[in-house]
Amino acid sequence: MAPSSSSSASPVTAIRSAVDRELAAFCADHRAQVLAIGEELAPAMDALEAMIAGGKRLRPTFLYWGWRGAGGAAEDDRVARAAAALEFLQACALIHDDVIDNSDTRRGLPATHKRLAALHSDHGWSGDADEFGRGAAVLIGDLCLSWSDEMFQASGFPLPTLREARPPFDAMRTEVMAGQYLDTLEQVRGTASREAALRVMRYKSAKYTVERPLHVGAALAGRLDGLGAVYTAYGIPLGIAFQLRDDVLGVFGDPGTTGKPAGDDLREGKRTLIVAETLARAEAADGERFRSLLGAPDLSAESVAWMCSLIERSGALDACEKMIEGYAGEAVTALESPELDEAARRPLRELVVAATARTH
Amino acid sequence: MAPSSSSSASPVTAIRSAVDRELAAFCADHRAQVLAIGEELAPAMDALEAMIAGGKRLRPTFLYWGWRGAGGAAEDDRVARAAAALEFLQACALIHDDVIDNSDTRRGLPATHKRLAALHSDHGWSGDADEFGRGAAVLIGDLCLSWSDEMFQASGFPLPTLREARPPFDAMRTEVMAGQYLDTLEQVRGTASREAALRVMRYKSAKYTVERPLHVGAALAGRLDGLGAVYTAYGIPLGIAFQLRDDVLGVFGDPGTTGKPAGDDLREGKRTLIVAETLARAEAADGERFRSLLGAPDLSAESVAWMCSLIERSGALDACEKMIEGYAGEAVTALESPELDEAARRPLRELVVAATARTH
Repeated sequence: MAPSSSSSASPVTAIRSAVDRELAAFCADHRAQVLAIGEELAPAMDALEAMIAGGKRLRPTFLYWGWRGAGGAAEDDRVARAAAALEFLQACALIHDDVIDNSDTRRGLPATHKRLAALHSDHGWSGDADEFGRGAAVLIGDLCLSWSDEMFQASGFPLPTLREARPPFDAMRTEVMAGQYLDTLEQVRGTASREAALRVMRYKSAKYTVERPLHVGAALAGRLDGLGAVYTAYGIPLGIAFQLRDDVLGVFGDPGTTGKPAGDDLREGKRTLIVAETLARAEAADGERFRSLLGAPDLSAESVAWMCSLIERSGALDACEKMIEGYAGEAVTALESPELDEAARRPLRELVVAATARTH
Repeated sequence: MAPSSSSSASPVTAIRSAVDRELAAFCADHRAQVLAIGEELAPAMDALEAMIAGGKRLRPTFLYWGWRGAGGAAEDDRVARAAAALEFLQACALIHDDVIDNSDTRRGLPATHKRLAALHSDHGWSGDADEFGRGAAVLIGDLCLSWSDEMFQASGFPLPTLREARPPFDAMRTEVMAGQYLDTLEQVRGTASREAALRVMRYKSAKYTVERPLHVGAALAGRLDGLGAVYTAYGIPLGIAFQLRDDVLGVFGDPGTTGKPAGDDLREGKRTLIVAETLARAEAADGERFRSLLGAPDLSAESVAWMCSLIERSGALDACEKMIEGYAGEAVTALESPELDEAARRPLRELVVAATARTH
């Protein structure tokens, strides 16, 4: 008997090993280039490669299925390289994000700046270890950002094809940095409105993680004109749903799965949509107390439990779950477009399920 | 009578207004793109544009004369755009450098992170103003780094020409970041050897500021093969001489001209070649004292004066002046190559003089 369709490779595994292989080859080549400048750069390269080795390869996956949905071939080293290039952009975003948010950990391991600060302490160097760690992490992120477009340009596609793919590639970078700036701004301004939270999600998550990678994939297959709108109609709601799921997990998630302590987003004071929904729905006194606890670095387990219970009691959690469902439905509907190549329809639908399921 | 040759336009002014014009056009276009994401990004764009508006346009100048020396036309909007793209890379380097070194000022004005910290304070936002300023500056630098290659790819040269120019363009970015990392490392390790100082100068200054821009210019004119070695023979010694002059001015320079307080490099503890020369030449007790004062944030005017006198007494200043002269001579000699187009010979010689003169 033929294997059932549900047992076939997942949409992510379809590209994962090729992306991993291309990243490893690029890193090996560039490690040699960097160590020829100075062998003391080895720990910086180790930290960079540790970031590159991890992660779910979400953006490469969307680039790949954007390419397949536009009729691109199933196996093509060029698309694997172009997809892998997005991981360098993501590595920069995460390394710099952790510096900006002063986060200690990433994926359950020390953040890059913490890793470099530890190097400083271990050697007993002069000056402030944290300052050294931050500075080194800024530079390692800069290297990743440079290597992202270097790898993209060297992917091997014909030059006119690469030129077609530059507008979404360039827009993606500007959008994620602008979105990240707005996110930082909302946090210090304490805005916590639904509109503000949705705007950050749109740029920092939906466009950056889903829509633009799909657009780049379509452009590489020469079909951005025909598929741009379809991928926007799919990518924006999916990206928002995906971020909403992440926000819910950031409050209620199992630390063993998320790699972050329970209630971490509340301790960090993130102005997520679930927070905005809670504040919009809670009684005045509860809202006041919630607001005063949000972002307190020494937030106790009791306070986290009370905040979680308010998120549930106020109806904010249910509202978010309904939104996730609604956005996921929108994304699935967009896949009905006749423009989309049949090969990508089921994998893109599976990505909606995987990205918005209650545990992932 | 025809004007004497010495009264003609300087090598820098030959390209400056075209570069300024292209930068202004690019910034206007991208300001609109960014403010469409959120009007609150205006102060970030203001800070970015303030960085872009300043500076000596050294890297664009070398790119331009690298192009002219390879037979490129005197006026060409494409080369002005490619040259201008290097200013975005430089803006990123300076903005991030100021975050890494925790510098308060740049060119006599508040550093980008200080400017954004002041925005935070002025609005009475929550959280730490300095932390916000640093985070915002990291993101503004990232935008500059992205826009550098975006502008370069969009300069209008034929795509195969741009591809020829990518290896030196890419190498330049990796080298400046690696050089900057080594610089940070030397500072905390307190190495202060001549070899370490020369290596940092080679990557962070000579290759980044002079050699690679020349290589990119030659590649854009299709003559990297013929001129690469000539530009290396000219660019590396000139870049080192230029950085040495900068280091001398960082200790002995007039604050009114350098835009930095007198003795600023000593206060910052920079491991420059002039410091290495001093330590290599001074008596043990003087060296000990010099070393202990180097990098002290509260360094008094008296201590600065004593350190300056040791630099002179030890013979380190004379040694550096001799090195500047020697390197400048090497650079001028390299210009004798018959590969070089006559149009660039005199301007490239003038750039040696301008970059290494005792005041500039």
